[in-house]
Order: sequence, then structure tokens, then C-alpha cells
Amino acid sequence: MATFIIASGATAMGSQVTLFFTFWGLNLLRRSNAVPVKKTIIERMFGWMMPRGAERTRLSQMNMLGMGTRMIKGIMKAKQVPSLSELIDNARQNGVRLVACAMSMDLMGIKREELIDGVEEGGVAMYLDQAEAAGVNLFI
Amino acid sequence: MATFIIASGATAMGSQVTLFFTFWGLNLLRRSNAVPVKKTIIERMFGWMMPRGAERTRLSQMNMLGMGTRMIKGIMKAKQVPSLSELIDNARQNGVRLVACAMSMDLMGIKREELIDGVEEGGVAMYLDQAEAAGVNLFI
Amino acid sequence: MATFIIASGATAMGSQVTLFFTFWGLNLLRRSNAVPVKKTIIERMFGWMMPRGAERTRLSQMNMLGMGTRMIKGIMKAKQVPSLSELIDNARQNGVRLVACAMSMDLMGIKREELIDGVEEGGVAMYLDQAEAAGVNLFI
Repeated sequence: MATFIIASGATAMGSQVTLFFTFWGLNLLRRSNAVPVKKTIIERMFGWMMPRGAERTRLSQMNMLGMGTRMIKGIMKAKQVPSLSELIDNARQNGVRLVACAMSMDLMGIKREELIDGVEEGGVAMYLDQAEAAGVNLFI
Repeated sequence: MATFIIASGATAMGSQVTLFFTFWGLNLLRRSNAVPVKKTIIERMFGWMMPRGAERTRLSQMNMLGMGTRMIKGIMKAKQVPSLSELIDNARQNGVRLVACAMSMDLMGIKREELIDGVEEGGVAMYLDQAEAAGVNLFI
Repeated sequence: MATFIIASGATAMGSQVTLFFTFWGLNLLRRSNAVPVKKTIIERMFGWMMPRGAERTRLSQMNMLGMGTRMIKGIMKAKQVPSLSELIDNARQNGVRLVACAMSMDLMGIKREELIDGVEEGGVAMYLDQAEAAGVNLFI
């Protein structure tokens, strides 16, 4: 949530924003539907255990079998705060670059076709180039 | 803890420090006593589930029903390390700006009167302005 | 993992890297074998509860009694990604400075002899000096 709220604020203020997604963060960029791809058994298990996309992501430290997340989603709707998937959509439309860490994809067995449209692949060198050039650089 | 230790180090070295508190971090700025304010039922539940102020905040990943936090507090006292609430007090006295994220306050139903004295309200634009200008900028 | 992968990328690109380890992060720098040092009972309990070195560190949010960590280690081996302890060794060999937070060592009762070779001790002033001078600075 914080990532996308800061990113959308920054684009609104005229900055260029690139977001890198590594390890568990990658799950945010997964399509919500299963995509038929070749996987090993381990990769398949891994994919099945992790949340597929923003809609299925826990939003609360106090999860309590999903109650915390459901409460927060309800409050966000009532207060007219955009949902996590709306924030991701807005970010893409406002020109935020979404980069998936290639090594994380490999480790977690996530294939390109399983990610939402408009996501690039990149590595640590690409991240460091951007971070060096950036005015603000956060690890969230 | 790390936030306030780095902040107090930076003020001691002559830097100006602004701390932004979002989501769960906001709980650190709550008064330890209940403040009579108008809230919806959901807001009241939310407020009741979250720790009120620094004294009630977990300090350990190994919480074990409060034992981890109690142990760490005991050790900090023995080693004469200031407690989390002393660190917050010191920060305020040394001119550290404490800014509560207005959107988080709205989402979590936390009212201005429930926060400790000297806290400002601000948004992502204020954060980004400060971060752009700062020499060191951390997301903790 | 992210810390050492970014650090090794940065050294490969010709940057100088200093890593500061505070609180739980300090456990990564502990030797895997017990070292005979004088400790209070509390310090001894603390040391016994925390993982001793990179090999015993949880690598997964989904720990499931160690299964998550074991699965990730297996996948990393299969994909020929260096293990956490290999990453730490590589970092030292490539000139990455490893600095243990002196205050954390004091609080957690960790003695110099219990840390792996080549680790320096330092405080918040040392960290801030380096962070001010650095192009990229992350709290991970």
C-alpha cells in the first residue's frame, strides 16, 4: 500500500517512478487467474502457496484468518481510498515502470505469462542504475 | 527503536530530522490513555485492537505472549538504554518533527486529539518534498 | 538475501559498500559454533533463543516449522543461486565492509569473539557519515 501511495504521489508531482518487485513482492504482479505454464512440482507447490495478485494479498498484520484484511478493505471502500489493485492500475496508467526481479522469478518459478501486462524484467544492475540516478530511493 | 536511535544520532550531529508515521507506525504516537472522541463502531474496534502508544508496543519478533518484549525492556533498563517512550520524548525536545500521515489517520479512525502533543499532520506530498531535500531518507 | 544480492551487485559495478547490522540482523554475523564467553543468565538465554549465523536463519515468511526455509534452500541449490552464507563470504572477499552495531551487541549480549572474522564495530554516527556520503542507502 505505502509503495503505491508514495509512487502515485510522486508521479502526481511530476517525478518518474520505477518500482522493483523482488521475492514476495512479486506476488502483487501475478495475474489473478491461473495461467497454463510448464512448471516443476516444487514450482507448482510454491505458486499454489503464495497469493496470486493484489486481491489476495494480506493487508493487515492482524490477519486473524482473513478478518483483518476484510475489515481494512471495507474501511478503504467506505473512505473511498482506492484498493491495492486500483492503485496498481493507476500506477501503470500514470507511467510508473513496474520491474520484476528476474532472479526472484526464477527462484519462485514464476513465468512471464503469469504476470500482469506492462511488467518489465530486470536485475540488480538495472535497479542500482536507477537508484543512483534517483532523488528518492526506498526499500519497502 | 531503530528509527528513534538513528534520528537522535542525526540531531546530535546537527541534522534536521522529520519522521513520518503511517499505518501501524501511527500507534507509536497515540496517547496511552483513552481520549473521548466520536467514532464509528468499526473505528472503535480498530482502535481497541491496536497498541496505544509506545509503552504497549511489541519490541520483539519473539513476542511469546509478551515475554520477549518484557525481557528486552528489562535488558534496556539494565544497560541504561532509553526506553522507546523516552526516545520519543527526547526526539521532540531535540526538535525532531513528528508527522502523522493524514490518510492513515482517516483509515484507522485515529483523531488528532488521540495523538501526543507536538505531532503535525501531513500527506505524501509533504513527505516527498522533505525526502527530495534530505541527505538521508529511510523507510523503516 | 536482498541485502547481500544488492551489495554484491554494487561491488560488481565498482561501488564501495558498507553494511550495518543492528538488532536481529546481528544474528547473521554470529559464528555457527558456540564460543566460550562470559555472559549473564539473561544474555545466555537470549543468545540461545536467536539463530546462530546465516545457516540457521529463516528464509521464508511461510516457515511452517522449517519446511519453507528448507524448500527455498533446495530451490536455491537447484537454481545455482549462492546460499546466504556463501553470499556473506563473497561479500567479505569483495571488500564489502561489515559493521556490527555496538549498541545492539551490548543489548543482545553478543561479544566480539562470537562474530565471524572481519567484522568491525560501529555506532549510529559511523552509519550516518557513510549514509550521507553514499549514492544509494537502504534500510532492509
